[in-house]
Amino acid sequence: MGSLGTFQRKHKLAVVGSGNWGTAIAKIVAENAASNPDIFEQTVEMWVFEENVEIPKTSQNYDPSNPGPQKLTEVINRTHENVKYLPGVQLPTNLHANPSVEDAVKDGTILVFNLPHQFILKTCEQLKGKILPFARGISCIKGVDVNESGIHLFSETIGRTLGIYCGALSGANIANEVANEKWSETSVAYDPPPMDSKAPTPQRTPTSSQIDLVQFEHKDTSGQLSKIKLKALPSEYPPVDHAVLKALFHRPYFHVRVVHDVAGVSISGALKNIVALAAGWVDGMGWGDNAKAAVMRVGLLEMVKFGDKFFSATIDQRTFTEESAGVADLITSCGGGRNFRCAKHSVERNQPIEEIEKAELNGQKLQGTLTAVEVNRFLKKQGLEDEFPLFTAVYRILEGSMSVAEIPSHIER
Amino acid sequence: MGSLGTFQRKHKLAVVGSGNWGTAIAKIVAENAASNPDIFEQTVEMWVFEENVEIPKTSQNYDPSNPGPQKLTEVINRTHENVKYLPGVQLPTNLHANPSVEDAVKDGTILVFNLPHQFILKTCEQLKGKILPFARGISCIKGVDVNESGIHLFSETIGRTLGIYCGALSGANIANEVANEKWSETSVAYDPPPMDSKAPTPQRTPTSSQIDLVQFEHKDTSGQLSKIKLKALPSEYPPVDHAVLKALFHRPYFHVRVVHDVAGVSISGALKNIVALAAGWVDGMGWGDNAKAAVMRVGLLEMVKFGDKFFSATIDQRTFTEESAGVADLITSCGGGRNFRCAKHSVERNQPIEEIEKAELNGQKLQGTLTAVEVNRFLKKQGLEDEFPLFTAVYRILEGSMSVAEIPSHIER
Repeated sequence: MGSLGTFQRKHKLAVVGSGNWGTAIAKIVAENAASNPDIFEQTVEMWVFEENVEIPKTSQNYDPSNPGPQKLTEVINRTHENVKYLPGVQLPTNLHANPSVEDAVKDGTILVFNLPHQFILKTCEQLKGKILPFARGISCIKGVDVNESGIHLFSETIGRTLGIYCGALSGANIANEVANEKWSETSVAYDPPPMDSKAPTPQRTPTSSQIDLVQFEHKDTSGQLSKIKLKALPSEYPPVDHAVLKALFHRPYFHVRVVHDVAGVSISGALKNIVALAAGWVDGMGWGDNAKAAVMRVGLLEMVKFGDKFFSATIDQRTFTEESAGVADLITSCGGGRNFRCAKHSVERNQPIEEIEKAELNGQKLQGTLTAVEVNRFLKKQGLEDEFPLFTAVYRILEGSMSVAEIPSHIER
Repeated sequence: MGSLGTFQRKHKLAVVGSGNWGTAIAKIVAENAASNPDIFEQTVEMWVFEENVEIPKTSQNYDPSNPGPQKLTEVINRTHENVKYLPGVQLPTNLHANPSVEDAVKDGTILVFNLPHQFILKTCEQLKGKILPFARGISCIKGVDVNESGIHLFSETIGRTLGIYCGALSGANIANEVANEKWSETSVAYDPPPMDSKAPTPQRTPTSSQIDLVQFEHKDTSGQLSKIKLKALPSEYPPVDHAVLKALFHRPYFHVRVVHDVAGVSISGALKNIVALAAGWVDGMGWGDNAKAAVMRVGLLEMVKFGDKFFSATIDQRTFTEESAGVADLITSCGGGRNFRCAKHSVERNQPIEEIEKAELNGQKLQGTLTAVEVNRFLKKQGLEDEFPLFTAVYRILEGSMSVAEIPSHIER
């Protein structure tokens, strides 16, 4: 990365979110800041929603002389352990927990978003006008926002609200395995805006004090060209390109492939949860490995078809069949993810999946059931339910108008 | 299938082989003969290597008054159960076990081959000149014959030896699940020779008594055109096209997609076993679902690349990523197939895989280890080991020059 060291300024990193997956990603980002001191500022900010926690007695950071409730940020900064959301994992000392989201991001040039869905919009609204205007973002939030009118990527929601360009990270990444440095892979999707190109060009303004809004044409997920006004990244910073993003996320235990296809990476992270429900039901029926593989194959085909049909202008089909965010994440999710497990138990115990969800997920919501309903509403509006028989079957089983036993005949072609 | 009923003659079916998978396929073929009486003769012949068996006491066909050894063919024809290789499964009454392979195939117009690798060539040599010259074949034998000089499909070995055209069947098909009518899918690959085309043409001779050798150009797996002499199928028979093959193999519990890509279907059935070894080792290390999915993703990419590189003229990349013989069979094999299980145990028990193989497989051989060695010899000869890092890693781990722990860094790109 020596060639990147010729810039006057370094990127300042901030992670917005500190749940299980948020903290695991913050750990990686802070490790890489330390490993690449010529590109990144050393201290990485992590926004932590402040709460009082008691350090569990099982933690190596438990202190019998101070057993009472303490602020989570203080515990993290003192012990370098997120005792509430990622217990047992040692965090880098250059990761700084910050209870103020505004303070955490204020100097950040690269912002990593890793929040539950329901907090994204609210948090971005709160940050509007309070970030560097030329910051760039990466959304690690799985899934998409589908409704009758269309499909919106969270990276687009973030980008539009904050007026920045935002890419996405998604892959076969069970958070605890990543946090414990068990080897895995991921996909980072980022299509650098042209004014961020490496070589200083007339489009790149010379210093941060002089930067102006630069217009560029952005093809959105429907394939329509729109003009987006973005602040160019000042040329004193290394451009946020694929090499810098690899330096930011790649670890010996976390292999990164950087691609351009933000829509594909985001869409597959959402659609695979629908397939995982079907795989769980089929497995719960005791139909064996052949049947489970069949459901996954048909599901993968429908994922590809969905991309082709609704994102033909921007999506790369290979994202589904070749990248970690596609086929590998599908495999992991159907191997033992929560959507798979809840669906499987609902058949085995002959209970509605909502009851399993309540009993097993401690108040958290299943992503797959929500996505299945949203995708169905969208497909129905398009008159295309029949072209996606597995997605449609999953929806109908959820609403009770079809049985799991009907899946094979329903998807037979 | 009414439109097929206008032909004067029906296809006579024979299955060559009666092991676990052979009997499961024979059951399907006989069921479909019964379901499609306008296309197929009712009695389906199955060649059974004759041996004396004792009916287990657990079988519903056990007869205390006749407990001694009996001929397997007689037991199958009397009880409609293959008590030795597929116990507990009721076979159709129109499936006839025949101890003479020559007699079993002599009138067959469609021959289904389902034998262990080591018997293929010998059996075909024995049948040379003893089958109908215009017969057509389907090989259900998984794997390919790879050596330094190249890759040979078993369908080609059968076709060349017998002077017939032969396609292939392969998919995510654990035999016992299929035999027990648990839903699954498969791929049938068949590229009909032009003289078999549906409409009677000058190339199709009018009656079986008048047929002659017809030349057609065949693109072999290396992409080279060669002229093959084939007897045209007499026009009194329904042409062996994709519709007839679907009628022959498709069942409500066994969904068939017929494709043209014989090489792709055969190659993926072989290469996925190499990937399954890697997945088993990684799983045995306790690295979790992310790591297993990563290995499978990289393996799938190398399967696609192998096809592109060595079969570019004939292979369809989508066979690997879209068909049951590709990604679905990979998933099933890495879910709990024997290559996966033996590899996993070898790590968990810290024993060479050969010992696990001996202890667990009752004299049978692991396909994956053999294929990994053969593929490596071929790649080495081509100077292309480095382009297939996972396949190469599997070989090196087998020969002891690399450790499982080195897989991630070895395949890092």
